[in-house]
Amino acid sequence: MPKSRLEAFSDGVIAIIITIMVLGLKTPQGTSWEDLRPTFPVLLTYVLSFTFVAIYWNNHHHMLHAAEHVNGAILWANNHLLFWLSLVPFVTAWMGENQRASLPTAAYGVVLVMSAVAYTLLQRAILLHHGPDSRLARAIGSDGKAKLSLALYTAAIPLAFVNQWISDAIYFGVALMWITPDRRIERQRS
Amino acid sequence: MPKSRLEAFSDGVIAIIITIMVLGLKTPQGTSWEDLRPTFPVLLTYVLSFTFVAIYWNNHHHMLHAAEHVNGAILWANNHLLFWLSLVPFVTAWMGENQRASLPTAAYGVVLVMSAVAYTLLQRAILLHHGPDSRLARAIGSDGKAKLSLALYTAAIPLAFVNQWISDAIYFGVALMWITPDRRIERQRS
Amino acid sequence: MPKSRLEAFSDGVIAIIITIMVLGLKTPQGTSWEDLRPTFPVLLTYVLSFTFVAIYWNNHHHMLHAAEHVNGAILWANNHLLFWLSLVPFVTAWMGENQRASLPTAAYGVVLVMSAVAYTLLQRAILLHHGPDSRLARAIGSDGKAKLSLALYTAAIPLAFVNQWISDAIYFGVALMWITPDRRIERQRS
Amino acid sequence: MPKSRLEAFSDGVIAIIITIMVLGLKTPQGTSWEDLRPTFPVLLTYVLSFTFVAIYWNNHHHMLHAAEHVNGAILWANNHLLFWLSLVPFVTAWMGENQRASLPTAAYGVVLVMSAVAYTLLQRAILLHHGPDSRLARAIGSDGKAKLSLALYTAAIPLAFVNQWISDAIYFGVALMWITPDRRIERQRS
Repeated sequence: MPKSRLEAFSDGVIAIIITIMVLGLKTPQGTSWEDLRPTFPVLLTYVLSFTFVAIYWNNHHHMLHAAEHVNGAILWANNHLLFWLSLVPFVTAWMGENQRASLPTAAYGVVLVMSAVAYTLLQRAILLHHGPDSRLARAIGSDGKAKLSLALYTAAIPLAFVNQWISDAIYFGVALMWITPDRRIERQRS
Repeated sequence: MPKSRLEAFSDGVIAIIITIMVLGLKTPQGTSWEDLRPTFPVLLTYVLSFTFVAIYWNNHHHMLHAAEHVNGAILWANNHLLFWLSLVPFVTAWMGENQRASLPTAAYGVVLVMSAVAYTLLQRAILLHHGPDSRLARAIGSDGKAKLSLALYTAAIPLAFVNQWISDAIYFGVALMWITPDRRIERQRS
Repeated sequence: MPKSRLEAFSDGVIAIIITIMVLGLKTPQGTSWEDLRPTFPVLLTYVLSFTFVAIYWNNHHHMLHAAEHVNGAILWANNHLLFWLSLVPFVTAWMGENQRASLPTAAYGVVLVMSAVAYTLLQRAILLHHGPDSRLARAIGSDGKAKLSLALYTAAIPLAFVNQWISDAIYFGVALMWITPDRRIERQRS
Repeated sequence: MPKSRLEAFSDGVIAIIITIMVLGLKTPQGTSWEDLRPTFPVLLTYVLSFTFVAIYWNNHHHMLHAAEHVNGAILWANNHLLFWLSLVPFVTAWMGENQRASLPTAAYGVVLVMSAVAYTLLQRAILLHHGPDSRLARAIGSDGKAKLSLALYTAAIPLAFVNQWISDAIYFGVALMWITPDRRIERQRS
């Protein structure tokens, strides 16, 4: 089974997720600087989520580019990833409107953890299909960055109930860490 | 007429349907566990609908992959399927907000029945265009799973007025039954 | 300049237009038959608009399939068509909520007229680029059906102020007339 | 790394941005001419933004068509451009609802400036990857039109606080100037 339609469908879903988040940016009530002020924390959360979804798209792009073919398990692992990513606009809107609250900050972390788990499962499904000696398997290696991200996201969930700024710092930190695309696969291709 | 643009348009519409459903998940009013609680039944309905639309995408992907060319009748049978799928976000939002009500549960079933009927009509239009001896026709065979689903959905509509939990159980059961992609066509391709 | 990205962009925009219209279908306030009743006229308007946009997509698909290459004028004629189509969800929502009012019915007609004019301009831009002796030019011929539709739409605008049912009848009639794809181009290809 | 998926993702995001803006066109409250009147300034702002996003899509299409391959820096420069474009629906809705206010008009200018800066950065990333002697580099040349637009947009931000009509005139003027696609690259291709 060729991978082109899986890529096209994923591109479509991720493009919509990243774009409909902006519908959560409500038009300010008035036209003064005072009216614009409440938009800034929501906008900052939007920047963070845009970056996360863009990171997923970039890594997904790299991983599927290295893959050669797909099967039914890969299709469903991919749908599972898209499901968790589709919840990003929901937790973005909730956290954006309630910057200083613990529960929305923790909920944001839950969606990030589940997306990371789903990405790992998709990676495993692809590796299983291509075999341990494939070019893709050698390219991915031990994948320390993904493991570190998952550990940090998981830590951010309970920490949101201690102080939500710690969790916010973790989310921004992990985004910065990932903003460089997965060089292992990219290097492999060139 | 080649099938690539039909696939691209269907991918686009289905990707949007599956994603805009999340706009029906309203941001909780506050930031406590109490405020989050009403979101869970809506989220569960969203999971169900996401699964159904993903099943349609997967099967559509398999069927069109096996098809070789399309005609005007196939284009319109496909548009007819997309129409019924486009109503899924509407009935999802209505059922999600009214878990214990009969009419929204029955309306959800009506959209599932009509989508299944539209999918069957699309399959027939494709088979008619490829002939009874085509690879696709042999691959599909008698299609018992589709007939069983249609019978179960149809039963779920009146049963929603007896007890809507029966219908909910049927919807989840059929989704589980279909979560494995159509192996007949997949096997045929490999 | 190849036409593939023009097709992809148009597919994307038309897929979104046809799908976000469903966001205009507001969830019924309650769960009784009485609550569902106001949804039906809106749903009927949605069916009409879905059909119109699907007709445009099908004809656009046929026309660009017959085209061989595009230029800057074609790109802008295409953007102009997409602009008018993008207003369909707006007039659909307005007419759907006010079935018996003249002005929304006339506004719906204005968007249909402008879309038809934009489609004709796009067709001319493509024909100009391919030359009067091209396969596409011979395939289109005098295009009586398009001229008749334009005349009927134009008549429907003032008639909406006489009796809006006349205009509604014209809209449904033209949709039925176009539901068969443009056989001239299709025949040409086979 | 091939450029096809970058094009597909950009097409998807830009198609969604250009289309969801119409969701900002609120259905008139009533059905009289009086009720329709407040829609016109919002509609005019929508026309302006549709044109701007279409200009970006056309130029993006031309530039990537001339490009031969992409790297990680180009992917992120492209995501950065898509981020600023994704804010267009937000400032369009705010300016559309407050035609005579300075701050929304200035905010609109800020998004246009940042989009233009992001486009320039993307162009540089592509040129850096292709080398100063590439066909693309020769085609782009000194790019006076882009520099003039950036200067005009930047001037429009403070001018919105003097008189917002000056800024509106600048926005429409720049749109008219760009409505012809980038002929340098187009000429190069033919």
